[in-house]
Amino acid sequence: MTLKEQVLHLGKQARAASYELSQLTTEQKNTILLAMADGIDTQATTILDANAIDLAAGRDKELSPAMLDRLTLDKARLASVADGIRQVASLPDPIGETLDHWTRPNGLDIEQRRVPIGVIGIIYESRPNVTSDAAALCFKTGNATILRGGSEAFHSNTAIATALQQSGSSAGLPDHSIQLIPSTDRETVKHLAEMHQYLDLIIPRGGKGLIETIVSLARMPVIKHYDGICHIYIDSAAAIDLAVALTIDGKCQNPGVCNALETALVHQDVATAYLPAAAAALRERGVELRGDNASLSHLGENATPATEDDWSTEYLEKIISFKTVASLAEAVSHINEYGSHHSDLIVTTDEAAATRFMNEIDSSGVFWNASTRFNDGEEFGFGAEIGISTDKLHARGPMGLRELTSYKYLIRGTGQLKSQPAK
Amino acid sequence: MTLKEQVLHLGKQARAASYELSQLTTEQKNTILLAMADGIDTQATTILDANAIDLAAGRDKELSPAMLDRLTLDKARLASVADGIRQVASLPDPIGETLDHWTRPNGLDIEQRRVPIGVIGIIYESRPNVTSDAAALCFKTGNATILRGGSEAFHSNTAIATALQQSGSSAGLPDHSIQLIPSTDRETVKHLAEMHQYLDLIIPRGGKGLIETIVSLARMPVIKHYDGICHIYIDSAAAIDLAVALTIDGKCQNPGVCNALETALVHQDVATAYLPAAAAALRERGVELRGDNASLSHLGENATPATEDDWSTEYLEKIISFKTVASLAEAVSHINEYGSHHSDLIVTTDEAAATRFMNEIDSSGVFWNASTRFNDGEEFGFGAEIGISTDKLHARGPMGLRELTSYKYLIRGTGQLKSQPAK
Repeated sequence: MTLKEQVLHLGKQARAASYELSQLTTEQKNTILLAMADGIDTQATTILDANAIDLAAGRDKELSPAMLDRLTLDKARLASVADGIRQVASLPDPIGETLDHWTRPNGLDIEQRRVPIGVIGIIYESRPNVTSDAAALCFKTGNATILRGGSEAFHSNTAIATALQQSGSSAGLPDHSIQLIPSTDRETVKHLAEMHQYLDLIIPRGGKGLIETIVSLARMPVIKHYDGICHIYIDSAAAIDLAVALTIDGKCQNPGVCNALETALVHQDVATAYLPAAAAALRERGVELRGDNASLSHLGENATPATEDDWSTEYLEKIISFKTVASLAEAVSHINEYGSHHSDLIVTTDEAAATRFMNEIDSSGVFWNASTRFNDGEEFGFGAEIGISTDKLHARGPMGLRELTSYKYLIRGTGQLKSQPAK
Repeated sequence: MTLKEQVLHLGKQARAASYELSQLTTEQKNTILLAMADGIDTQATTILDANAIDLAAGRDKELSPAMLDRLTLDKARLASVADGIRQVASLPDPIGETLDHWTRPNGLDIEQRRVPIGVIGIIYESRPNVTSDAAALCFKTGNATILRGGSEAFHSNTAIATALQQSGSSAGLPDHSIQLIPSTDRETVKHLAEMHQYLDLIIPRGGKGLIETIVSLARMPVIKHYDGICHIYIDSAAAIDLAVALTIDGKCQNPGVCNALETALVHQDVATAYLPAAAAALRERGVELRGDNASLSHLGENATPATEDDWSTEYLEKIISFKTVASLAEAVSHINEYGSHHSDLIVTTDEAAATRFMNEIDSSGVFWNASTRFNDGEEFGFGAEIGISTDKLHARGPMGLRELTSYKYLIRGTGQLKSQPAK
């Protein structure tokens, strides 16, 4: 078989598995999930041995320390992989839920019912724990999964997938429910993205380059997890202490994530109160400061001028840009134009200003007096998430189990014909 | 400006309009819709004159009678275009609805609220009424629309769009809410499909060729309206009269639509009762009959053998294929394999059989004792529809106003920080 035929074969098998998966009860699925979690524990040595091979190769290839860290598994990380599966087992099952139900004047009874999507492809980079996280979430929602991990983690991914398949199988997991593409040839990404007859959805988890490649290749829906250019806006009616605390939290608690802050907009009436205080606290934490002309004089000596590019840059590190605005309307325009429609925050004691901001900002999460870092499936109470969607279709913001489902209509009749008037 | 720059300019304008549109009240939108309906009435002569130009050109190009008919507007059709807009005004507005609302243990108040998608591109073929239908539905849901109609209807589309813009504008329609691409150059389709920075969704309305072109070009979500290979399954416990009536209704009431029947599967225990009766009734209505070996002998003399291709063909005309199956399971397998996951029907008096069929068939509409022709937005009570989606993401089956919306999360806090434990 050619590589393309191999991928198509996996697709055909996944489609067949998806029909079986859609009929499993919640109890059956949870039993299988708990068996898979135990399988990770039982096969820990095998998985860690495989990981050691990947790590040795990674060192030879001189991967960065950050990449090597993402690639590394140890007993503790593996235990949390297994616990992650147990947590998915404990979550409510959205499948089978009646979303809507009504009767038409002609007597037709129409039920809208939540069902699995079918077959989901996941393409990801170096973290081997995605193999298990993604498979568990997709399985809980009755979907078949085809995984395509990064080449650096190939042995780790294979060992984890094998552990899930073997332990799941002994508890009733339908064959081919969870399949890992047994090749890291770049062509397999293309074959997967073009396989619209077997794949209902493709989710790239990784950097912008990976996502853009998938978007340009894919013949089926893609749910994208792009970057977050997130803002804090300090309204004229803001409590300055809180504004500073939320700036620090959003920028410093974890600068490398999508819901971290990149730009602070401050109303001119409170610029002299907020900017020096924020600048001092940020500088203390090693954050580089950039500002527009109006802000710069309040930011202290090490601050540098912000350029037009700064407003649309996701730094993902300890850099922040400041801009002074004349009104809430100017802040809203700036955020909708330069932001990435991810997570944006207003600090104010004025409810009318907060309401206007939350209504007019076009982002997945609009915050009032709370950190943008809370735009996250775990923090929303979804229990687990596949990512934070930057799309507006199907899933927007944190993607939990519910966002891995579709629906169908069940129409019950008593002989209604289109060609006849209602009985 | 190049053609590409022109399309990008329309996109930029539409994005700006979308922010204004998202803030309109239901009352404002309905006032504008009623003004647009009146605008169609007022400018009827201008629109019909433009249509006459398209029709003359169509006759010169020797368009088929069916295409010319689709292209033709007259006073009655134009009145129904205006009434369609009035009907959209009368429908409930889904925007602003709270979809979910909960409080987290740390006090964060999370509201999931229905909002517009943003900017929607509609690419369509010869029917000029789509200009108005699509614009009205998208506008009611607070979306900006960029329309790209077929070249045959260019003058009609332009006249209709102008009438909508002018009459809408006088009632408060934000500029650039409804824009028609003023060119039918094929390149504009490509430019539109690649304009992901301004277009949130693209909906092709037309034949398979058009849809496939868009899918291969689009860098943003596409909602597809593909074909319907729809089935009726006559269970061993079926009432034969009803089975025949539903076969006739599904095949003959309007054979050229996506929810019409293409294949009838019959349980072997009732094949001798159903097949001759169905064949006689269909033949009387001029339907060509094809069958597998087991069915053929019961179908009468003019029936011909069905080939493998028949099972996956959308005839869209008076042809039907029959297959005899040994069990409900065989029917389900056949439908899931050869069907297009559109609309499928079981005829039975056995509730357990119906439940199994509806659970296991993976189609947008699964019917029990009612015609597949009811898989339609109007019949579902949606009031108006943009089409019947064959996708499983975001919208599946009839797409009404609700399916033209997205959501966002509004998170209200009291100073919650990620870096601090809950207060």
